[in-house]
Amino acid sequence: MDLTTVREIFKNKEAYLDKEVQVGGWVRSNRGSKAFGFVVLNDGTYFEPIQVVYHDTMDNFADISKCNVGAALIVRGTLVATPEAKQPFEIQAEEVTVEGPSAPDYPLQKKRHSFEYLRTIAHLRPRTNTFQAVFRVRSLIAYAIHQYFQERQFVYVHTPLITSSDCEGAGEMFQVTTLDLKNAPLTEDGAIDYSQDFFGKETNLTVSGQLNGETYAMAFRNIYTFGPTFRAENSNTTRHAAEFWMIEPEIAFADLDDDMDLAEGMLKHVIRYVLENAPEEMNFFNSFVDKGLLDRLNGVLNSEFGRVTYTDAVKILEENNHRFEYKVSWGCDLQTEHERFLTEEVFKRPVFVTDYPKEIKAFYMKLNEDGKTVAAMDCLVPGIGEIIGGSQREDNYDKLVARMEELGLKKEDYEFYLDLRRFGSTRHAGFGLGFERCVMYLTGMGNIRDVIPFPRTVKNCD
Amino acid sequence: MDLTTVREIFKNKEAYLDKEVQVGGWVRSNRGSKAFGFVVLNDGTYFEPIQVVYHDTMDNFADISKCNVGAALIVRGTLVATPEAKQPFEIQAEEVTVEGPSAPDYPLQKKRHSFEYLRTIAHLRPRTNTFQAVFRVRSLIAYAIHQYFQERQFVYVHTPLITSSDCEGAGEMFQVTTLDLKNAPLTEDGAIDYSQDFFGKETNLTVSGQLNGETYAMAFRNIYTFGPTFRAENSNTTRHAAEFWMIEPEIAFADLDDDMDLAEGMLKHVIRYVLENAPEEMNFFNSFVDKGLLDRLNGVLNSEFGRVTYTDAVKILEENNHRFEYKVSWGCDLQTEHERFLTEEVFKRPVFVTDYPKEIKAFYMKLNEDGKTVAAMDCLVPGIGEIIGGSQREDNYDKLVARMEELGLKKEDYEFYLDLRRFGSTRHAGFGLGFERCVMYLTGMGNIRDVIPFPRTVKNCD
Repeated sequence: MDLTTVREIFKNKEAYLDKEVQVGGWVRSNRGSKAFGFVVLNDGTYFEPIQVVYHDTMDNFADISKCNVGAALIVRGTLVATPEAKQPFEIQAEEVTVEGPSAPDYPLQKKRHSFEYLRTIAHLRPRTNTFQAVFRVRSLIAYAIHQYFQERQFVYVHTPLITSSDCEGAGEMFQVTTLDLKNAPLTEDGAIDYSQDFFGKETNLTVSGQLNGETYAMAFRNIYTFGPTFRAENSNTTRHAAEFWMIEPEIAFADLDDDMDLAEGMLKHVIRYVLENAPEEMNFFNSFVDKGLLDRLNGVLNSEFGRVTYTDAVKILEENNHRFEYKVSWGCDLQTEHERFLTEEVFKRPVFVTDYPKEIKAFYMKLNEDGKTVAAMDCLVPGIGEIIGGSQREDNYDKLVARMEELGLKKEDYEFYLDLRRFGSTRHAGFGLGFERCVMYLTGMGNIRDVIPFPRTVKNCD
Repeated sequence: MDLTTVREIFKNKEAYLDKEVQVGGWVRSNRGSKAFGFVVLNDGTYFEPIQVVYHDTMDNFADISKCNVGAALIVRGTLVATPEAKQPFEIQAEEVTVEGPSAPDYPLQKKRHSFEYLRTIAHLRPRTNTFQAVFRVRSLIAYAIHQYFQERQFVYVHTPLITSSDCEGAGEMFQVTTLDLKNAPLTEDGAIDYSQDFFGKETNLTVSGQLNGETYAMAFRNIYTFGPTFRAENSNTTRHAAEFWMIEPEIAFADLDDDMDLAEGMLKHVIRYVLENAPEEMNFFNSFVDKGLLDRLNGVLNSEFGRVTYTDAVKILEENNHRFEYKVSWGCDLQTEHERFLTEEVFKRPVFVTDYPKEIKAFYMKLNEDGKTVAAMDCLVPGIGEIIGGSQREDNYDKLVARMEELGLKKEDYEFYLDLRRFGSTRHAGFGLGFERCVMYLTGMGNIRDVIPFPRTVKNCD
C-alpha cells in the first residue's frame, strides 16, 4: 500500500503541506459533532500523532464517528497548516476508510493506566505513549550498539544459547531437555541417563557468552556478542529477569585501560545516538518518567569518566561509613548505595572502579602484580550504580590453572579455554553490558518488566 | 595498546608506506634462515595477512625463529613496498615481541584440514582462512539486515525465547525447567506438577517469534525480530540445527505484494553490502568453495524477482514431471528439486511462488477469495531453493477463528492473538528468513555446522 508515514510528514512537513497525503494508523481519540469530527491518529512510526478532520459530507460519516479508540483507519486528505492550534498541521480528510473497528471492551481508553495493569496486557501496551517510547528507544539502543562495534570492524559472534558447561557458576541455570519428565530414563546407578537426551548429555541455557567470545577474539582480535542470557534466580525484584540480553565485547592485544576506553566510547555513542534519533521520546521520559534524565545523560556525554582503584575507593567510602546501611571495609563487595555515592557524590560523573580483591571476582580475571587484586573494572553511573563489569583476562596458562585449582574448577571442563593460553596467548580484555539495564538507564524506567516486550520472571511466562 | 590493524594498512597503504607501524597478530607461517626470517602474520581484522621480515641483529632472533604457527607476536617496523613480490608490501621489523608462543601440538598447521576435522576444534577453526571468511561475512550479513530495517524505521523487537505456548506446532520443542528430573513433583492425578516449576507452568524454547511480532506491528506498523529459535527435530542433515537465528519482519497496512517487495529489497541490500564490505572473502569463496557464487549473487542483484502463483507453477512442473523424483500435482508441497527447477531452469532468477493451497500452510495465513488458497509466498533462489517464507496474515476475526476450529486449535490459547483482530485489525504481512540459510547462500558453504560458531545438533553440544 502506498501510504505516507506520520514520521515522514513531521520530518519533511514543507514537502507535504497543501498536498494530498494518505496515512494509515490507529485512533487515539475521536471527538465528533453533528457536522464534523476530529480523530487523533497514531501510526506507530512517530511519537506524535496526527489530527484528522472529517466531515458529514462523507458517506460513512456515521461509521467514522462511531470509531472507538484503537480502531484502524486509512485516511486520504490534504495536509494543512494550523498556525493557531497546538499541533502544527492536520489532515483535512477527503476519504476515511475504517480498516478495522475496535471492540467496545478495548482496554486502552484515554485515561492513564498504571504500569502494573499494563503488564497484564503486554500485547497491547506498546500502543500507549510510554511503551511506544520505551520500545522504540530499546530498538535504537540495540542498533546503536551494533553500529558502534561494526564501524570499528568488530566481528559480531553468535555464541550458543544451549550449553553443556557453566561459564562461571553465575546464578542458577535452566535445564534444557527433551526427556519425558514423568519417565526420565535412569542409568544403572540410578542417575538420570542423559545419553538418551537430545544432545546426549545434560544441557542448560547459557548465563554468559564470554568464554566462547574469547575464542573468537583470539582469531579476529575484536569481537562482540549480543544475545540472550538466562538466570533461574528466584529473585522477584525490579532489576532481575530470567531472560535478558547481554552485550559482551572482547578485545585482543588490549589491557584494562583499552577496555575502559571501549566501554566509555560505547556508552557515549549510544547516548548520543538515542538523543539524536529519538528526541521526542527522550523529552517525554524527561517530563513524565524521570525529571533529571536529560541533564544526567548530557552530563555523561560531556564528562571524561573518572577512574579510581577499589583500594582508593574503599578509603573514601570508609570515611563516609556513617552514611551507609552496609559498612565498607577492604575486601567487601560494593553495594549499590556505595556505588551511587561514589559516582553521584564523590566524582559527580561516571567512574570506573578498578583492581578489585581477587576473592570477590571471577576466576578468569588477570591477577595483578600485588597478588591480591585482579585487573577488573566496574563502570558506575549516576542514578543506577554499576552498569558495566569487565576485566583483563588471565592470559598466563600457569596462573590461570593455579587459580582454577584454588577454586576447585576442573581443568578438563575448560580444555578449550586453556588452549587459548597454550596457542598464541595474548593480553586481552572484555566487558559485559546488561542490555535491559542500559535501556532502563537511558529511559529512566524503574522496572525491568517495563523495558522487555514480554518479560520472563519467577512464575511469569505469559 | 596503540597498534595499527592490518586492515587499516591495506585500506590506506599510501599513508603507511615508509612509515613506522606497530601491529599485533598471530603467525600463519615462519620461514627462517641463519641471518633473517619471514613471518606471515594475520591479525584477524583483514582477510589478507602481512609479511614481516626479521633479522639476526635482534637480540631475540632465536626466539622468533622458533615461533610455531599460531604464536602471538607484536611487531614494530617500517612498511616498505615490495613491487617485485606477490604481496604489495611487507614490514621490515625493528622489534618483534613474542606475546605468546604456540605449543608444538597446535592443531592448525599450514596444510589443509577437512571441515569435518575442524568441527572438532570449533574454538580454533576461526583462525583458518575459510572460517575467518565465513564468520566475518556472517557478522556483516547480520549488520546489513539490521541496517536495512533500521534505515526504514522498523522497530527491532526482542520476542521471548522461553514460551508457554507453541506458535504453530512447527517441529519438536525443547522443554525448559528447573524441576529435579529425578524427583519431578506430581499432582494428585499423577501428572507433572508444573506449578512448582520456575514459571509455574510448562515452558519451552520458542520455535518462532512471529505471533509476538504481530502484536508489535499493530503498535509500530513496521517491526522485525532477529533472535534465536530452536527445534528439537531428530534430523541429522546438512541443513538442520537445533539452535539457529531467524529474522521475522512484520508490516501493517501491507499486503502480500508489499511483503514480497520488502523481502526482495532486503536480500538485495544484504548481497550488495557483503560484496562491498568483504570483497576479499567473497572472492575466496568464489575460488575455493563455490565456483559460481559471484555470478549467481550478481545475477540476483541485477534481476527483478519473478512472481508466479502456486497453481501456475504446478502446471509448469507437471509438464516436467519426468525429471523429478517426486511427481508434482496440485495440492502437494513443493520439494527442493521442484523449487530449484523453477528458479534455475524456468525463471533463471529468484522467484516468488504465491497463493499455496491452504492445507499445506499455517492457520494464520489469509484465505484468498477462492476459498482454497492462502496469500502465502515462498522466495526461491538459484542454488538453494526456498530461502524465505511469508504470508499476509488472516486479519478477519471470524475467518481466523473458523480456520482454527477446523484445525482443532483452542481459542483460549490464542486470546492475545485474536485480540489483534478485535481491536483495530488491519491487513498485515510478514516473512521469516533463516539466518544460517542466508549465510550458507551468500558464502556457498554446504553444511549448516560450518556457518555457526558452536553448532548445536542432535547429540552434539560441545
